[in-house]
Amino acid sequence: MGSAHSITNITNRQAALSDLIANSELDAIVLNAGPSQSYFTGLHFHLSERPYLVFIAPDKAPIFLLTEMEVGKVNALEYEALSFTFDEDPNRWPDAFNAVAETLGKNVSAIGVEDTQLRLLELRLLQDALPNTKFEDGSALIADIRQHKDEEEIAAMQRAAEIAEDALLATLPMVKIGTSEKDIAAELMMQLRAHGSDAELPFLPIIASGPNSANPHANISERPLQKGDLLIIDWGASVKGYYSDITRTFAISELDEELSRVHKTVELANAAGRDAVRPGANCEAVDRAARDVIEDVGYGEFFIHRTGHGLGMEAHEPPYIRAGNSTKLEKGMTFTVEPGIYLEGRGGVRIEDDVLVTKDGVHSFSKLPRELQILN
Amino acid sequence: MGSAHSITNITNRQAALSDLIANSELDAIVLNAGPSQSYFTGLHFHLSERPYLVFIAPDKAPIFLLTEMEVGKVNALEYEALSFTFDEDPNRWPDAFNAVAETLGKNVSAIGVEDTQLRLLELRLLQDALPNTKFEDGSALIADIRQHKDEEEIAAMQRAAEIAEDALLATLPMVKIGTSEKDIAAELMMQLRAHGSDAELPFLPIIASGPNSANPHANISERPLQKGDLLIIDWGASVKGYYSDITRTFAISELDEELSRVHKTVELANAAGRDAVRPGANCEAVDRAARDVIEDVGYGEFFIHRTGHGLGMEAHEPPYIRAGNSTKLEKGMTFTVEPGIYLEGRGGVRIEDDVLVTKDGVHSFSKLPRELQILN
Repeated sequence: MGSAHSITNITNRQAALSDLIANSELDAIVLNAGPSQSYFTGLHFHLSERPYLVFIAPDKAPIFLLTEMEVGKVNALEYEALSFTFDEDPNRWPDAFNAVAETLGKNVSAIGVEDTQLRLLELRLLQDALPNTKFEDGSALIADIRQHKDEEEIAAMQRAAEIAEDALLATLPMVKIGTSEKDIAAELMMQLRAHGSDAELPFLPIIASGPNSANPHANISERPLQKGDLLIIDWGASVKGYYSDITRTFAISELDEELSRVHKTVELANAAGRDAVRPGANCEAVDRAARDVIEDVGYGEFFIHRTGHGLGMEAHEPPYIRAGNSTKLEKGMTFTVEPGIYLEGRGGVRIEDDVLVTKDGVHSFSKLPRELQILN
Repeated sequence: MGSAHSITNITNRQAALSDLIANSELDAIVLNAGPSQSYFTGLHFHLSERPYLVFIAPDKAPIFLLTEMEVGKVNALEYEALSFTFDEDPNRWPDAFNAVAETLGKNVSAIGVEDTQLRLLELRLLQDALPNTKFEDGSALIADIRQHKDEEEIAAMQRAAEIAEDALLATLPMVKIGTSEKDIAAELMMQLRAHGSDAELPFLPIIASGPNSANPHANISERPLQKGDLLIIDWGASVKGYYSDITRTFAISELDEELSRVHKTVELANAAGRDAVRPGANCEAVDRAARDVIEDVGYGEFFIHRTGHGLGMEAHEPPYIRAGNSTKLEKGMTFTVEPGIYLEGRGGVRIEDDVLVTKDGVHSFSKLPRELQILN
């Protein structure tokens, strides 16, 4: 896997975060292993039973806390960094945390963390080493920076969408009556790799046919496709750690009148959602635009999820496109627009695109036709 | 992906956990999305920005807390369960947490959590709904049950080892001078799928050649193999959600005398480690047995990690095979034995097997030859 994090971008990101910290009530941010840690450091550690942390504070080089086995990765960095290490015995981990606390200064009053990432494992060790420090949710500061994608990131996401679409086009010829959901998934994953996706896919494709498609998060089954089925394919590729996440819904051989109307409604809702995207519009306005189309046709109660979610290094990240989110869209934000209608026992339709807020409107990374396509 | 969790096993596991809770100072256990939640419920939810929880308490049906979009999975369970749901607006999530708190009884004094799984996201919502409750690390109770694999689990792990070994054998013919680490990884992953692994691999294979092999957690690079290289391949398959995690180290075309001696030493250390496995031996004795072999030859300082880790639904789980861990081995425990020697700038050797503690000794799921194999 390559990286979309050039050294200049990394140090710029650290500086931007330090500025936000300096202007907040926080003294530092601590990140555990995960996408934000990779984004701000350029290093990639898996979340594991070990507490790998990096501390970012104004006027300080980043401070890494990790196992001695991994310290070579920090030593090889092209920017200044400090590191403290621990060994395999958890009973000695507090020593390393205390050493970091000494370096930070025991009088730090508040450190920001990511509530959706930091675990009790790390929290308890941090609290023991810094008993007078409050650990507050600093996700908003991090999102402020990560939500604005730079050109490297945008190029990776564009490519991830292209690879995903090419992989689907290469898979569709095998999709016919009798093909199982599982076989479609296997072929699609093979094609994603073959077309250039990173090995680690953003998520397992969802292949949901017939009644299974009425569950937005259906697990892949052995069900063979039948005449008249709706078929939801929700899939993505990864390029340099950046994701695509696209959905198209097909019909197998034929589709009855109501399900055709449902598909058309979702197609119009998807278009209305994308049309509502521009700098200055807020997230709930995009949700509202898509939802209005579906409610007007009387299917409002069957659109059972938000219209979209931010996309980038994570399959779900801010901004969330939902009622109640008044976050204003800004240039460089990237998210999905994915309205759906789900009829229990019959089937569902979802049409999902990945979009970028541009200077004066919207660009869709994904381009595949959205109108109903009948596969034979 | 199939399941190794039959309904009988699931309800037995819940009963066993309830018994342990009843005999502890805890009133309940709460699990967020992750392997333990799957193990005790049979349901599989991805860790996401949403707090999916299950509460297990003596004399109560399991209580699920999840988004309304997923409640169909709980309703379809073959055992009794309660569910409380929330929608897409995080501002309303506390209502659902308060409803669960009412059902649990606001006077619960201590709830067990998994420190390596539970995030601040869930903790803060729990603490707000149950302000008088302590949230303590209940990992030991959970490990007590999960560490003892049942026959279904053991069968899945045996199959995961077989698939991994067959996939490697199918990959080795392409490994020669000039092949890149990345190409080997791509072929191996394809072969893992082709031989029957679940789509979600336990981890990305490590393919580390020449000097790269001196880093136990090397990232895959574009480096082409060279004559005289050591080549570490560390890979695994997944069957019904259970993992294998095997390492073999090869030589490319030839190997100098010192690196050959290093390989032989690790081979003997691996054998000594496996031989030390039996019911009643403790974890550090297995580590010591492998480490002694390496220290005796003078390479002790280059064996920079523990001898192994538990393996099952997670790539790393208890028991940890390291100095200082006096946990006694018991029948049904499964873990890796993976000594290694790493010489900075030159290369490394690791030989890793997946073993099961049997009634009177040890069974190795992995069987591939461990002696040095020179690839041409």
